[in-house]
Amino acid sequence: MKKVRRPAPGDIAIPETPVQSGTMLADKLRPLLTDPDLPGARIVRAMAITGATTAVELVKATGLARSTISQALGQLRKAGLILDADAPSGGMGRPTVLCSLNPEAGRCAGVLFGLDEIRIAICDMAHSVLSDRSVPIAHDYDPRTALALVQAELGRDCAALGIRIADLLGIGLAISAPVSETGLVMGSSILNWAGVDLVELCAHALPCPVHADNESHCGALAEMTWGAAVGEPDFVLIKFDLGIGGAIVCAGSLQRGLHGGAAEFGHLILDPDGDPCPCGNRGCLETRAGASHLLALAAGAGGQEVSLADFIAGAVDGRPDYQQLLATAAERSGWGVGLIGTVLDTPLFIITGGLARTGELFLEPLRQSYERHTLCKSAMLPADRRPRFVLGKFLANDTVLGAVALVLHQQSRIA
Amino acid sequence: MKKVRRPAPGDIAIPETPVQSGTMLADKLRPLLTDPDLPGARIVRAMAITGATTAVELVKATGLARSTISQALGQLRKAGLILDADAPSGGMGRPTVLCSLNPEAGRCAGVLFGLDEIRIAICDMAHSVLSDRSVPIAHDYDPRTALALVQAELGRDCAALGIRIADLLGIGLAISAPVSETGLVMGSSILNWAGVDLVELCAHALPCPVHADNESHCGALAEMTWGAAVGEPDFVLIKFDLGIGGAIVCAGSLQRGLHGGAAEFGHLILDPDGDPCPCGNRGCLETRAGASHLLALAAGAGGQEVSLADFIAGAVDGRPDYQQLLATAAERSGWGVGLIGTVLDTPLFIITGGLARTGELFLEPLRQSYERHTLCKSAMLPADRRPRFVLGKFLANDTVLGAVALVLHQQSRIA
Repeated sequence: MKKVRRPAPGDIAIPETPVQSGTMLADKLRPLLTDPDLPGARIVRAMAITGATTAVELVKATGLARSTISQALGQLRKAGLILDADAPSGGMGRPTVLCSLNPEAGRCAGVLFGLDEIRIAICDMAHSVLSDRSVPIAHDYDPRTALALVQAELGRDCAALGIRIADLLGIGLAISAPVSETGLVMGSSILNWAGVDLVELCAHALPCPVHADNESHCGALAEMTWGAAVGEPDFVLIKFDLGIGGAIVCAGSLQRGLHGGAAEFGHLILDPDGDPCPCGNRGCLETRAGASHLLALAAGAGGQEVSLADFIAGAVDGRPDYQQLLATAAERSGWGVGLIGTVLDTPLFIITGGLARTGELFLEPLRQSYERHTLCKSAMLPADRRPRFVLGKFLANDTVLGAVALVLHQQSRIA
Repeated sequence: MKKVRRPAPGDIAIPETPVQSGTMLADKLRPLLTDPDLPGARIVRAMAITGATTAVELVKATGLARSTISQALGQLRKAGLILDADAPSGGMGRPTVLCSLNPEAGRCAGVLFGLDEIRIAICDMAHSVLSDRSVPIAHDYDPRTALALVQAELGRDCAALGIRIADLLGIGLAISAPVSETGLVMGSSILNWAGVDLVELCAHALPCPVHADNESHCGALAEMTWGAAVGEPDFVLIKFDLGIGGAIVCAGSLQRGLHGGAAEFGHLILDPDGDPCPCGNRGCLETRAGASHLLALAAGAGGQEVSLADFIAGAVDGRPDYQQLLATAAERSGWGVGLIGTVLDTPLFIITGGLARTGELFLEPLRQSYERHTLCKSAMLPADRRPRFVLGKFLANDTVLGAVALVLHQQSRIA
């Protein structure tokens, strides 16, 4: 089958739409998102997940016959719910026709509850980012304060697009903590959030469907939907940022574990007698290789606070002290990633987060350390059977895009 | 739905069969094992995996309508391929009718290539073990020597049952090494086996379908088919024996990883500067908590060799020195199991292998140590959402039964 390069949000220029109000289109779309059987509904859900796609890919995704797909696409086109566009041409030959949900047909929002920011993005159904901004908030903020802020700021962003919060197809919430299937925060590095029922908290204030998950799980959904994991059924994502988190995807499904706590890689214990970690244990990978730890060391050595952005820029610009700290973190991280590889025999590692923005400076020593800390050595394996290490596509905004992807994926799960 | 207690191999007394030759029945059965569509074929494959079952369970397993199941069961009964039996009654009420494949309709064999033994079992299609014996072999034996031995000994066991090797529906091979999807041994604690293509090696000498997998993966299949994991879609099995191995089952599927190396828990590195491990790395869990290590310590302290059986018996009988060694191994193992829990947020751990035969002596300190080494603490969780630790059902012969189960599961995968 012809491999289609899937456009990233914004890559694809959707042609002018026939004038039709977004609310009218959303009213047509909403029932299709939940109907389990209609071919049109199955196509819409597949496209909500994959973004722009081809009829051939839809046959594969839905299991419907080519003729059924063609007929249903015709009806959806007539209703104004989907649009056609030529795929970016890779060279010779007739361009592939990509069809996409009409961006006007609905909007989804993603909200990240970060350590010192709340980030809010809105995307359309063609996966284009319509707005994406960060609102600073004081450390260890309270859930209700955060919610009031989201209500006001998201309301403002919606108004700028001519809609209300209630018009959104859904809101995805991302937080740096395990989140149970029902939306319960299971413990968090933000004080006061453990035990909060995120979905319940938001249900009244935000009058549209709300879904919640761990931020790295959302990051993996973003990479699956638009990024480095498109078409990859089995991979592990590891996010090296102030903290360290991750996600495990197995046969195309995000693995959440018993209470959403799967892939808490930052809390792999490398030394039970090591430094205390905010999680309550000691010697966690995060305490030895998380960027917070590196920044503390950099600040200790230089006598002044260093931001993550400055650290990354310094390392990339060739500061030997920062590069040395980065290499040491990569070496220790390779031990942690080796533990993951020994458990899962992972075919693909997607490396994201701030430290990944240093590229090979971090990736190369990480890969080398992994080889020393895992059972199946690459040297033993044919070149096409070695585990791959790649950088994520979204190193700056994966989480908030992932929160949007969470809505698209969850919508598809309703049926 | 009524929960049926599934009988273990040998539990169920199959009534006398109408006289019909096994070869005739096998000739009727073989095409059904591979036909993708016929309801009878789907029932036979489901029963090959589950063993004795009820019509209600078959509806669930196959997705076929109750009436279709009834009709197809009637035909299979008439052909002599299935038999009915009353389920062991759990108390009051009319006994549930269990149907089972006619044991005469086919035989499968399982072969374990162990460190110093080759173990061979033959089961019938009702999952009863017809023969199971161990043949000693000198350490670090050669693949061809082992194959010649299997050919002779399995041939003898078949002859005792009035069949030839060629009459077997399949042979499952288990070895303590990662095995790739195509049957390639990826490295082994038995010398000379790394790089051997097990399936190819056996293809000519053993004239029936041959399937191969890691011994702990086979153990998990045995627990899924007949043991502690029946009806459990997500679990991790950890085998604490001379070495330490395991298996990960996710949504009912055994996770093999990139080259069959998933769940090599014995090679989780606890200390990169620790004692060398035969795998080539240092400080692997196996070097600190494997029974080989405990036996070496026990021998060092007592001045004479100690067998695993003697060690287990001594610990169970209350020898404080052995109990102390066992508790230390459980403590270290809890760190390793904590790492697994941090990666997978596992709902169920099934503990097997020799050390598991000491029961709570090993399990209780393991559980306590796990709690100290994992992120999501049980104390934070409601009682019904805590990870469970249970002993495996087959602590003596899981691997060889699992090799048989491998044949039954693989047969079902052909279609």
